[in-house]
Amino acid sequence: MDSCLFCDIAAGKIPSTEVFSDEDFLAFADIDAKAPTHILVIPRRHVAGLNDLEPEDADLLGRMVLTATAIAAEQDLSALGYRFVINCGQDGGQTVPHLHLHILGGRPLAWPPG
Amino acid sequence: MDSCLFCDIAAGKIPSTEVFSDEDFLAFADIDAKAPTHILVIPRRHVAGLNDLEPEDADLLGRMVLTATAIAAEQDLSALGYRFVINCGQDGGQTVPHLHLHILGGRPLAWPPG
Repeated sequence: MDSCLFCDIAAGKIPSTEVFSDEDFLAFADIDAKAPTHILVIPRRHVAGLNDLEPEDADLLGRMVLTATAIAAEQDLSALGYRFVINCGQDGGQTVPHLHLHILGGRPLAWPPG
Repeated sequence: MDSCLFCDIAAGKIPSTEVFSDEDFLAFADIDAKAPTHILVIPRRHVAGLNDLEPEDADLLGRMVLTATAIAAEQDLSALGYRFVINCGQDGGQTVPHLHLHILGGRPLAWPPG
């Protein structure tokens, strides 16, 4: 496999400000934060993006979203609220081809979302 | 249960421009579209939002995301890309307290996402 920035972060080869880690997922602060809390949640397994998911990934995906809600709670975002964003491809603004979910919170998020 | 707009749409009591429907999910056009393609995917079962999910909802959540990726493909968004957004609470900009995933595509989506 070619080099992947987020695989390297998951492997500890590139440092990150880690927020959460378990067997399947890693969460770390976005280095270009767009809100007071801006965290990325990634699966440790390399999946390029939403277009590359298979039906058997349902459990992984569901637990990824639940992991993100648990992180939002841990970050004290539950009461005021937050936004989850997953970008895919060029129009979506996906800049790293490894599936990642953005958690944004700590300020009122505007609409439309980009 | 109190009246819920999206439960009423899922039950066919309120009309919508339906894009997809199966036993567990419904997808329909957002009436206040913010992109050439702007679709909402909801579970038929009432869940107020991300804060109200339980560990046993992982499968439902995962299949909801996969359903959204299949709809994006069906809408010819896969090649150029798209964005998924889930709002929670006041800061997140959630306006209907029934879990829903926004699919936005058909134009380059800006950053930050709100």
